[in-house]
Amino acid sequence: MEPNIETVRELSRRHGNWGRWGPDDERGTLNLVTPEMVVSAAALVRRGKTISMALPYDENGPQTGNLGRFNPIHLMIRDGADAIAGTSLRDFYGGVDKHFRGTDDLIIMPLQSGTQWDAMGHVVFENKIYNGFGAEWVSSKGALKGDVANAANAMVGRGVLLDVPRALGLDWLEPGHAIGADELQRAEEYAGLDVGAGDFVFVRTGAIAAARSAGTWGDYAGGDAPGLGLASVDWIGERDIAALAADTWGLEVRPNETPDVFQPLHIVLIVHMGLWLGEIFDLDPLADDCAEDGVHEFFFCGPPLPFTRAVGSPLNPMAIK
Amino acid sequence: MEPNIETVRELSRRHGNWGRWGPDDERGTLNLVTPEMVVSAAALVRRGKTISMALPYDENGPQTGNLGRFNPIHLMIRDGADAIAGTSLRDFYGGVDKHFRGTDDLIIMPLQSGTQWDAMGHVVFENKIYNGFGAEWVSSKGALKGDVANAANAMVGRGVLLDVPRALGLDWLEPGHAIGADELQRAEEYAGLDVGAGDFVFVRTGAIAAARSAGTWGDYAGGDAPGLGLASVDWIGERDIAALAADTWGLEVRPNETPDVFQPLHIVLIVHMGLWLGEIFDLDPLADDCAEDGVHEFFFCGPPLPFTRAVGSPLNPMAIK
Amino acid sequence: MEPNIETVRELSRRHGNWGRWGPDDERGTLNLVTPEMVVSAAALVRRGKTISMALPYDENGPQTGNLGRFNPIHLMIRDGADAIAGTSLRDFYGGVDKHFRGTDDLIIMPLQSGTQWDAMGHVVFENKIYNGFGAEWVSSKGALKGDVANAANAMVGRGVLLDVPRALGLDWLEPGHAIGADELQRAEEYAGLDVGAGDFVFVRTGAIAAARSAGTWGDYAGGDAPGLGLASVDWIGERDIAALAADTWGLEVRPNETPDVFQPLHIVLIVHMGLWLGEIFDLDPLADDCAEDGVHEFFFCGPPLPFTRAVGSPLNPMAIK
Amino acid sequence: MEPNIETVRELSRRHGNWGRWGPDDERGTLNLVTPEMVVSAAALVRRGKTISMALPYDENGPQTGNLGRFNPIHLMIRDGADAIAGTSLRDFYGGVDKHFRGTDDLIIMPLQSGTQWDAMGHVVFENKIYNGFGAEWVSSKGALKGDVANAANAMVGRGVLLDVPRALGLDWLEPGHAIGADELQRAEEYAGLDVGAGDFVFVRTGAIAAARSAGTWGDYAGGDAPGLGLASVDWIGERDIAALAADTWGLEVRPNETPDVFQPLHIVLIVHMGLWLGEIFDLDPLADDCAEDGVHEFFFCGPPLPFTRAVGSPLNPMAIK
Repeated sequence: MEPNIETVRELSRRHGNWGRWGPDDERGTLNLVTPEMVVSAAALVRRGKTISMALPYDENGPQTGNLGRFNPIHLMIRDGADAIAGTSLRDFYGGVDKHFRGTDDLIIMPLQSGTQWDAMGHVVFENKIYNGFGAEWVSSKGALKGDVANAANAMVGRGVLLDVPRALGLDWLEPGHAIGADELQRAEEYAGLDVGAGDFVFVRTGAIAAARSAGTWGDYAGGDAPGLGLASVDWIGERDIAALAADTWGLEVRPNETPDVFQPLHIVLIVHMGLWLGEIFDLDPLADDCAEDGVHEFFFCGPPLPFTRAVGSPLNPMAIK
Repeated sequence: MEPNIETVRELSRRHGNWGRWGPDDERGTLNLVTPEMVVSAAALVRRGKTISMALPYDENGPQTGNLGRFNPIHLMIRDGADAIAGTSLRDFYGGVDKHFRGTDDLIIMPLQSGTQWDAMGHVVFENKIYNGFGAEWVSSKGALKGDVANAANAMVGRGVLLDVPRALGLDWLEPGHAIGADELQRAEEYAGLDVGAGDFVFVRTGAIAAARSAGTWGDYAGGDAPGLGLASVDWIGERDIAALAADTWGLEVRPNETPDVFQPLHIVLIVHMGLWLGEIFDLDPLADDCAEDGVHEFFFCGPPLPFTRAVGSPLNPMAIK
Repeated sequence: MEPNIETVRELSRRHGNWGRWGPDDERGTLNLVTPEMVVSAAALVRRGKTISMALPYDENGPQTGNLGRFNPIHLMIRDGADAIAGTSLRDFYGGVDKHFRGTDDLIIMPLQSGTQWDAMGHVVFENKIYNGFGAEWVSSKGALKGDVANAANAMVGRGVLLDVPRALGLDWLEPGHAIGADELQRAEEYAGLDVGAGDFVFVRTGAIAAARSAGTWGDYAGGDAPGLGLASVDWIGERDIAALAADTWGLEVRPNETPDVFQPLHIVLIVHMGLWLGEIFDLDPLADDCAEDGVHEFFFCGPPLPFTRAVGSPLNPMAIK
Repeated sequence: MEPNIETVRELSRRHGNWGRWGPDDERGTLNLVTPEMVVSAAALVRRGKTISMALPYDENGPQTGNLGRFNPIHLMIRDGADAIAGTSLRDFYGGVDKHFRGTDDLIIMPLQSGTQWDAMGHVVFENKIYNGFGAEWVSSKGALKGDVANAANAMVGRGVLLDVPRALGLDWLEPGHAIGADELQRAEEYAGLDVGAGDFVFVRTGAIAAARSAGTWGDYAGGDAPGLGLASVDWIGERDIAALAADTWGLEVRPNETPDVFQPLHIVLIVHMGLWLGEIFDLDPLADDCAEDGVHEFFFCGPPLPFTRAVGSPLNPMAIK
């Protein structure tokens, strides 16, 4: 029988974490990271190599307007041309030449437009967010519960790359490819490690590599995509990981396996499990490095920016090996 | 004799790094961080404690409009109230109930409005930026040279806190207090360590603590402030540090010691030395922790967001002990 | 007995227009303007003088953050300094000099930050907007019912200035001064005309003149203010006017006369009467002209910008005499 | 011989107006409108019909990112869903129910993204704008000379529609069609009137009708287009008109007739003649009405919004017949 909302409910029950860290908890699976894990993870820094997983934030990003998301708009408040033309002195520094000329700038961006963490307040199911808070806590004023600032002091620990296409001998997975527990396990074996409690797990589908190869984002943002399927949920839930990120716009396989449910894993993972999800992580440079040295674990540091009441945040996630 | 533009020129000559890392270099002092330093720094992670140095980004930030800088404006694209009212289904999900309700949001912010790195393109002196690039490389289109994305893969290494007020037995330094080499040295001694090549140095003045104590930002952003003075430049230049950040809006003592030069250290340090400067870093939680355990060094991870052509970036700088 | 929510309900019943122009109507009192009225109004153009009632839209506007409203933020996309520095050619025109240099710019502004019309969707009472549409029609997506674009082809007719302070021999009314029917009648007599059906009525309190005299906006936006009181509602309702605007941020007297109801006239006039309200209209230049020539009626043209789904719009309202 | 920059220089000399209205003038051809003209124009209001020429400002506008221009972004600050969910009371009105619920919104838009006036500061030629002001007056701070607010009290007078395709028996002109004096004259004859001093002239090419017919904007914004050609300049210059607007993104024929000059008419008309140009005016409803009643003149009221230091402005231009 085709999976449907009942499948989603069952998975949500099986892996639900409401109340696990108290009735007021807004940090979800970040509670699983212990100081000892952070110390152990630091020992993974062996070569002193730092690898960013952030896609550049600019007008060449993947957004095409879907769901109201657009690429970042960057504007200068004053610039070097003003210095040359003498206008910054007149307009910003009071007209008396004190030798200094500064430049300033500004960004307008949907917090979901590029590399991003989803906060607990990002998904509502049956008028509730993670830990049972009512959806009314996420209003036009922002997320008074479940905002991204809850992770401001966290997102540090052991990172693990699961390079699914490489484990399968592919360049990338095709849109519609649903990754299940079996393929995650093959990626673990390929990586030569076991994913465990408190890990930060990065699942590569190769979707960004495919876009790079095609020379166009196409419908990367919002369209069909490879990604995690329903058959991956038990694997994820049993491991007690801290966070999960992928190189697609929505982490999940698209089209969804549940014709009656949009983004079912978001409902299970964010709303019920309290798992932090990351999207549009550019995992290609990291994957190349891991393929080269054969080491798929690393020290991870990737906190969101503490945007008060925000349901997501851009970030520069760093793998340090 | 009162210091003036000639003092600035002399310090710039003495500590200039143009050409040191090649004629095309845009990374400045980040070149000083070696992989070995990153590996050594990781060994400083002993307790597994993570401490953010970012001030929350929201309407309660310190900006008052000075230099065109305003506090971040956060807006929801869709929210939980829409879920409750049934409008997100109608307006964003095509009217067919597929159980999922997402929320999205957006930020409008000057990149210099909160905790931030200054990129090389942020300061122009005599129509040039760091490494001699013409100011015309920083136009209305942004910084084609010297943008903040040059640090996207960096900003990781040993962090050192220099808690000047605690070293002097004070709660905070007063506006106008110019920190010189002597006080930096006393802070080093208080910290029980030596600042060296490739270090990320955080100088605390207590200005944010003072604002907190007063219950108001007052003219924190743009007004008089304690900060580094001209007598600190040799100390800074001789140590070959990777980056320098403080808990004030402008890092330097204000009013400036040079009546004829605005922000003279920015000219010496950014334009000529190629040093990355950080501002509005909230060093209080870190300082409290260091005072408690007596350890003033830590693993630092604080990359900017890779905003293409931006002259600065907000970030969530992380101290890991 | 002190007026309260029952007073508001009674006035709403007495002057309610739900259904008057059909169950689908979103234009409210603009339905009262006939083509004949427009033709008659054109005959009021006798001297060929055009007088704007818009306050400049810029950083010197009255907003201070109240209700999330800030002054317009204006930024250049490219400018003349880029032309001089040669950067616009390189960055925007492909590097081949075709002699043309253009400049472009951008605005970020709350639609309620300056001179503005309130649309029908701007006020909700008991989960309904004008004509009984549910409040769910005004979601994060905007006003699917009652948006300002409904007035795109309208807002033309006879304008009448009621200069209350001049009629009373004052420079301006003080905050807290509630204008009632008697003072409106005195202003009519001072103007030497009768307000009638389809008129566009502009009530001057002198609040902007007071701010100009003080040299500061103070708490003009959101604070105490002179304005229309409950005793003006019958006068307004009986005249079947097309629209009503004032020189204050909220049109109504502040503090409100109803301790238990915020902005009671907005509930009566917008939600129930379907009357278009204008705020922060700068009526001083018009008032000076009217005082000089003794003519207080004029041709009015002041359509909103057709922002789809917006609940308000800035505009440049024009009095032509 | 193919027209080139010398053609542009010659036309600029022939029709230049620098100094004509004094050395400080920033109003250009708006100086040509006399009060008498406004009075005469009012007599054209015969049927009391009001017709907007503004295209709706929303996400369905014609912009595709060309020149950094995007369609308006409209966001709610608070809305009716917040009223229903009870969150506006909690978040914006202090939690004590005073019966009122308001909605507010915000716009982010390039001022050149839709129906718009170009101000004098919008075009730079050889580092000068209209009347010889240096381009340094239009910096990152905006247009300190030649801003759109100079027209705040103007843009009222006789409007004339020149419906070129109808005059030629066509539905619309094709991209690349250069309108010359002959076709303008045929359109005048079709209209049965003479264009004269101080007129506001609206030239219809049918480009918006073509886009509507195609069901897509295609490359309307920035692509090839019908429009005014070099052969129209003498006709325009000799008539001393007040302003000129068209239904295309750039008013001029595209590709330009001058391979070495981009938008040559902008250089002649704005920079040298000081003529106000309007773009993306939706002339179709007006044209339909004119075709029906045979009257192609009307009262025009179309002031810009007084955005201080802006080089353009959206507006709702109104034809009143």
